[in-house]
Amino acid sequence: MSFKTTATIASFGGKLLKLSHTSKTVGCDMALNLYLPPQASLHKVPVLFYLAGLTCTGDNGAEKGLFQSAAAEKGIAVVFPDTSPRGLNIVGEDDAYDFGSGAGFYINATKEPYAKNYKMESYITEELPSALFTSFPSLDASSISITGHSMGGHGALTLFLKHPGTYKSVSAFAPICNPIACPWGKKAFSGYFGDNIEEWKKHDATELVKDWKAGGGLDVLIDVGTGDNFYKQGQLLPENFVQAAKSVGLEEGLVVRYQTDYDHSYFFISTFAKDHVNHAAKYLFA
Amino acid sequence: MSFKTTATIASFGGKLLKLSHTSKTVGCDMALNLYLPPQASLHKVPVLFYLAGLTCTGDNGAEKGLFQSAAAEKGIAVVFPDTSPRGLNIVGEDDAYDFGSGAGFYINATKEPYAKNYKMESYITEELPSALFTSFPSLDASSISITGHSMGGHGALTLFLKHPGTYKSVSAFAPICNPIACPWGKKAFSGYFGDNIEEWKKHDATELVKDWKAGGGLDVLIDVGTGDNFYKQGQLLPENFVQAAKSVGLEEGLVVRYQTDYDHSYFFISTFAKDHVNHAAKYLFA
Repeated sequence: MSFKTTATIASFGGKLLKLSHTSKTVGCDMALNLYLPPQASLHKVPVLFYLAGLTCTGDNGAEKGLFQSAAAEKGIAVVFPDTSPRGLNIVGEDDAYDFGSGAGFYINATKEPYAKNYKMESYITEELPSALFTSFPSLDASSISITGHSMGGHGALTLFLKHPGTYKSVSAFAPICNPIACPWGKKAFSGYFGDNIEEWKKHDATELVKDWKAGGGLDVLIDVGTGDNFYKQGQLLPENFVQAAKSVGLEEGLVVRYQTDYDHSYFFISTFAKDHVNHAAKYLFA
Repeated sequence: MSFKTTATIASFGGKLLKLSHTSKTVGCDMALNLYLPPQASLHKVPVLFYLAGLTCTGDNGAEKGLFQSAAAEKGIAVVFPDTSPRGLNIVGEDDAYDFGSGAGFYINATKEPYAKNYKMESYITEELPSALFTSFPSLDASSISITGHSMGGHGALTLFLKHPGTYKSVSAFAPICNPIACPWGKKAFSGYFGDNIEEWKKHDATELVKDWKAGGGLDVLIDVGTGDNFYKQGQLLPENFVQAAKSVGLEEGLVVRYQTDYDHSYFFISTFAKDHVNHAAKYLFA
């Protein structure tokens, strides 16, 4: 699928492209942002996927996340996809901020009426990268990393764990680490998968990490703000993820930083975006 | 006037405060953002005012401008004021994006019905700093600089030129340099001042620079994007400002950088924000 470029915006010596394309996987037009660093005009560059959180589109990270600055320095392209299909007119799709539109949870739904279109896992791991690598030859298909925020942090961790070898590294900002045990996750998984808890577990980072066998260790960077109300309300549960990783001897490479007073906003993300780009760069250029 | 703090947000090791206060000068409640860098908890810090452009509030620069990163590094507080009074119910106030609400032009209007409230020049140069220095003792009242974007670039340049000694330095992003000669300026000045062109000239950077006598030189940093449609449409006219500065021998310290392909957006501002903070820092710490 080829892309329509609706804007080309100079940013930190590179270009931010506003793109849209028709997705077969999710059955609608999908918008996204692609940042090409200055190095992309000279040679192939590795790619970092940034998955956004509930209510966001591909614009939030591009406008407020401050990834471009560090990405331009390192020579890394950044993809900012949307968070769900849009405008499908599925009953209930637009009724809540934490389910349906803007809340695709980066899974392939199995329950009707969402099973046909809410296939964000396949979109993010297959159709979108394939389309990007075809249309933008300066992107290095062999060197991809992933990061994300909140629901997108859940997406980054689970897609990394479910698709060994696909991503060189993973990191996350305030990720939903244990969706089967938090209100956001229970609501979404029940709506997208039905009531079978065994199915839910296949999409839960805390469950998945217990089965991680690819390679030796697991080097993950996670930042969580201690002033984050969603953390305080038990929506994120990073402690559960750490505990699970420890239970299978994977704690060594796992860095969870509790950042004093930081909240859940893009002010938090922009402050630490450089660290996450640098974390990815270690692996993308290894 | 004391401030109400509606939010305190951790950002780059410092704090972004969302403030509001009742302004006597403009006769309504005014919201703003104040970034206190980490150094403000240890000692007094200098202050950079960032004046935003048409349609903006104090939020745009704080969310998308990326001043906090460089300001935290240097130890400079940043003030992000609103661009006009709000909610006064003056006839016509909300009819256009480039006049009235969101378009105060940092002048004191003399024409009715705007003369009573549209006094953004007095608000920015007198009431707001005075209130801030009273409420936030960590701000150094003796060390202030100013910058701004588009209409706010006009504000920064003209307030600097009209109030010698008030600001240690000035810089601007895509400023309206010669409002009496461009459509935006003609509309606004005619609405705020009436038809007397001699009055208009008192608020036009290109006119004011011809009379600049304070100190020896004039060290101004201006960035303009060559892909900026408003530049191409003749709304900014930086060449006129340069020509006027040259005519009085002030070209030496005037740096106007034409940035290839950059547009008028916050993607442009965020790319060069660090340079403008560093420009201010040279003078604020001199």
